[in-house]
Amino acid sequence: MTVQDAHTSAPEPGGNGNGPIGWHKDHLTGSRPDLRVPVRRVHLTNGRDVTLYDTSGPYTDPTVDTDVRRGLAPLREGWITGRGDTGEYDGRPPRPEDDGLRATGPGGGLRNLDAVFPGGPRRPRRSRDGSPVTQLAYARRGEITAEMEYVALRENVSPETVREEIAAGRAVLPANVNHPETEPMIIGKRFLVKVNANIGNSAVTSSIEEEVEKMTWATRWGADTVMDLSTGRNIHTTREWVLRNSPVPIGTVPLYQALEKVDGRAEELTWDIYKDTVIEQAEQGVDYMTVHAGVLLRYVPLTARRKTGIVSRGGSIMAAWCLAHHKESFLYENFEELCEILAAYDVTFSLGDGLRPGSVADANDEAQFAELRTLGELNTVAKAHGVQTMIEGPGHVPMHKIKENIDLQQEICEEAPFYTLGPLTTDVAPGYDHITSGIGAAMIAWWGTAMLCYVTPKEHLGLPDRDDVKTGVITYKIAAHAADLAKGHPGAQEWDDALSDARFEFRWEDQFNLALDPDTARAFHDETLPAEPAKTAHFCSMCGPKFCSMKISQDIRRRHGGEMEEIEAGMAEKSREFAAAGNRVYLPVTD
Amino acid sequence: MTVQDAHTSAPEPGGNGNGPIGWHKDHLTGSRPDLRVPVRRVHLTNGRDVTLYDTSGPYTDPTVDTDVRRGLAPLREGWITGRGDTGEYDGRPPRPEDDGLRATGPGGGLRNLDAVFPGGPRRPRRSRDGSPVTQLAYARRGEITAEMEYVALRENVSPETVREEIAAGRAVLPANVNHPETEPMIIGKRFLVKVNANIGNSAVTSSIEEEVEKMTWATRWGADTVMDLSTGRNIHTTREWVLRNSPVPIGTVPLYQALEKVDGRAEELTWDIYKDTVIEQAEQGVDYMTVHAGVLLRYVPLTARRKTGIVSRGGSIMAAWCLAHHKESFLYENFEELCEILAAYDVTFSLGDGLRPGSVADANDEAQFAELRTLGELNTVAKAHGVQTMIEGPGHVPMHKIKENIDLQQEICEEAPFYTLGPLTTDVAPGYDHITSGIGAAMIAWWGTAMLCYVTPKEHLGLPDRDDVKTGVITYKIAAHAADLAKGHPGAQEWDDALSDARFEFRWEDQFNLALDPDTARAFHDETLPAEPAKTAHFCSMCGPKFCSMKISQDIRRRHGGEMEEIEAGMAEKSREFAAAGNRVYLPVTD
Repeated sequence: MTVQDAHTSAPEPGGNGNGPIGWHKDHLTGSRPDLRVPVRRVHLTNGRDVTLYDTSGPYTDPTVDTDVRRGLAPLREGWITGRGDTGEYDGRPPRPEDDGLRATGPGGGLRNLDAVFPGGPRRPRRSRDGSPVTQLAYARRGEITAEMEYVALRENVSPETVREEIAAGRAVLPANVNHPETEPMIIGKRFLVKVNANIGNSAVTSSIEEEVEKMTWATRWGADTVMDLSTGRNIHTTREWVLRNSPVPIGTVPLYQALEKVDGRAEELTWDIYKDTVIEQAEQGVDYMTVHAGVLLRYVPLTARRKTGIVSRGGSIMAAWCLAHHKESFLYENFEELCEILAAYDVTFSLGDGLRPGSVADANDEAQFAELRTLGELNTVAKAHGVQTMIEGPGHVPMHKIKENIDLQQEICEEAPFYTLGPLTTDVAPGYDHITSGIGAAMIAWWGTAMLCYVTPKEHLGLPDRDDVKTGVITYKIAAHAADLAKGHPGAQEWDDALSDARFEFRWEDQFNLALDPDTARAFHDETLPAEPAKTAHFCSMCGPKFCSMKISQDIRRRHGGEMEEIEAGMAEKSREFAAAGNRVYLPVTD
Repeated sequence: MTVQDAHTSAPEPGGNGNGPIGWHKDHLTGSRPDLRVPVRRVHLTNGRDVTLYDTSGPYTDPTVDTDVRRGLAPLREGWITGRGDTGEYDGRPPRPEDDGLRATGPGGGLRNLDAVFPGGPRRPRRSRDGSPVTQLAYARRGEITAEMEYVALRENVSPETVREEIAAGRAVLPANVNHPETEPMIIGKRFLVKVNANIGNSAVTSSIEEEVEKMTWATRWGADTVMDLSTGRNIHTTREWVLRNSPVPIGTVPLYQALEKVDGRAEELTWDIYKDTVIEQAEQGVDYMTVHAGVLLRYVPLTARRKTGIVSRGGSIMAAWCLAHHKESFLYENFEELCEILAAYDVTFSLGDGLRPGSVADANDEAQFAELRTLGELNTVAKAHGVQTMIEGPGHVPMHKIKENIDLQQEICEEAPFYTLGPLTTDVAPGYDHITSGIGAAMIAWWGTAMLCYVTPKEHLGLPDRDDVKTGVITYKIAAHAADLAKGHPGAQEWDDALSDARFEFRWEDQFNLALDPDTARAFHDETLPAEPAKTAHFCSMCGPKFCSMKISQDIRRRHGGEMEEIEAGMAEKSREFAAAGNRVYLPVTD
């Protein structure tokens, strides 16, 4: 599949030759005509509609002609320019090493011009006077931005609730002024739990085309943000394609690219190279950046007796740098300058947990919590600079140690959004770590984690392919939705109720269309009962007609409805007798 | 695959042409030479062994020549006869309707003689004088049976702990005197969390051969018990094959077969037909039976306003019967007689939750908890008759309502083992209900559930095939092991630690061999890095060599080990200074 074909991987609403899709893209319009929030309307066969949150972007909108070579329309452009606090400027000129190419030597300096995003680099935008142009700064001033109104409509809450949560630092709305294509979304514990999908080529395999396609594929299944963790060649160019075509916020770990620029030698990293990379990525439009500024020199020895040492790539790179120079982390030492840069583009911090545990044995240890305390301090510094901030969390944590993670993080980081990887609840199931971690993810999200970073079945073993990305996203959407239900998020249960109604009433097509993954639900049903009449049958292949409990249950209601009312009335009487008799239940068999 | 070939599906230790398996079957010997407890010894490349619990039976023992037409060796026979409290008798003669065949009419009464288990029906065994021959009765008398010693070795606890837990009714050891082939195992919250896999043909599809093969397949991946839920033709014969070849306890729902005998007309069920079916199955050797005796006439109307009514097959059948006759359940009315039958064979009760919720909307409602209170009373009655008893639980339950289920069950049922189906934490993901339920299963097991009934990806949609059975079992083994870890089960973490050590030291083969599913782990690794040298490479395809955090982490230890010690020593000093300075962490960037 080529980049040119990538958009055709998105579903075509209204029919794609494989039967009716059963839903269409719709929009909720806000206070201004250009504020149109996408939703998925599922049409039920009983004439009702169910409205679901939609992350798939314009790719699923038949009224929009998407073209990956042109990119998505910059829907936020008017809002950004309208605020008048940013201006265009001559950006940093592109360099060969941005794409992992050497300036000299064999093949040096050659950019793959065919791969460069058409139209060339745009002029980037930043704060006119250096003051923060962040949603946090606006929220604190009492301003409800178009972005805030957008997410309020999306989450079915009041715009003032959105503003309050952002102003208090309990939520972030990642939206770089150079990524006007993004459809605003919010990450915070008062809102729907969000899911991030990682994509990214590596030194070993993958290509630009695949990365763009993975992004559209991940958002098609419900990824709320995508992190581009590319580490091989063409990093800059890949990211440009991804950003220009992404309807969701894009996150990165700038350290990865910085390391490529020094050819993988951690000790050669400098603040200047790192800072230059951050600016390069901010100008492109990266919405949030993972920064491992909490890995301090004095914490590294705390990992020496660990079972699995340091398992965060960024964490291990910074630890190597600190020890090689016997100096404090340049990220920590220059954190305030970093804040100023991020504030000028509205890049959100994702303060990385470089010392997260990589095995259940290492969970909740001194290294991990020492770093968390430092992240808490950095969170305060970032907020003082008006930078939106979330905090990353583990990792591998057995179930009984999960709650301590979210409770400590919320306390230490003043309720800043927690963004966790899993956690994996056991180490023994490589090949199934979407499941070992989906368990932990659901629990920690119930207890307050705002965004979950997905884990695919390939974790610890290899690079995820298309199927792995889908499995990872679906698993994490399950975890997120299970948490929304457990938190009593308003409206969350309507979806379950609609599906359960369809199930009880044998509306098979509705059941498929309401499913998190309609294709798989339909395919599994058809495997044993492929005939079209089976789609309206009042049973399924599991139990067959005689044993279908739902069929029997319906028959009971039909045949004995009146009788049940009588018994129920009688029961009220019995209940009074029962209470009068001292609440001992009648039991004919006793010994 | 035919029955004759079924045993070849079991793994062949020592090598199967696809590379070394890396483990072998071993046995722990108890106080008598015929008390040999199977274990799996995984041989690590560093010369160490890891011993794991093994459910796969003699099929993985190269010293045993298995033949499904002969069945497994009756390893408990000597223990059972040695107790002298049971005797053989002329069993109930087989009848055509046992296999769902009509006595008269076209094709009536014809048994498929080729399918009958070779050697014909054995003479069954039961209590000589009607007094209970149950592990519960022995435990109460202070006797430690061979079966108890066997599970003590298996669980690495003292035989007295096993006896105490059984005597107190907090654990069951399902072991029908007519299933001497079974390798004893225990179900109780003080022991490893167990997993049940359902198999069973249905009116729509499947065959005897497939069911036997599903059983060996499920136990090969770790199923601790198997329920045969067949509902179509050949029920009796299928069960005979399954029992004679099963190293794990077999459970059934006798109501399903009873319903077949009245041609699917629930209202025609009688206590006599049901009782005859229970005896038929007890004589064959069924180890535990689900009995929906808690579905009372007066509870049925409580389901009238539910979203999904009654979703248990047994529950809906009994509800239909109660309403059709406007009489109390014949299971409830004859419960004491049923206890006497089960006590005479040591069949364990699994008191079914016929009114379990089938949607998150119906969770923890009046119908469900009313039935649970009745199950609590029946538990007391069963125990009075010396019958081992566990209690079944839901179902569909959102995360925040799960704990109430186990807490109430433990309180009402005097800590009898809880045996739950999931619970599913959301209704919106048909096709992924192994995951929606695996989340709930891990949580409820952590909180005290003793056995988890697996859910496959086909739940709600179709009959599980071989791959679904494997996926279901693996998912539930993850949930069970995550719970063992969270409960701090002695020795549980050793497995994780061994795997994490292998991971950190790049011992890829050890990592695969220790994995819950070595085949999948190996295949996923080979997909991106198939070359043999990659099996010893100090990185994987995810990050490549430059970004491998574990590699960097190891380098740090190698290159900076001494320095880390110095820093650590310095830190102790710093720590004192820090405390002296009022515990404020040094922070160079402030605002």
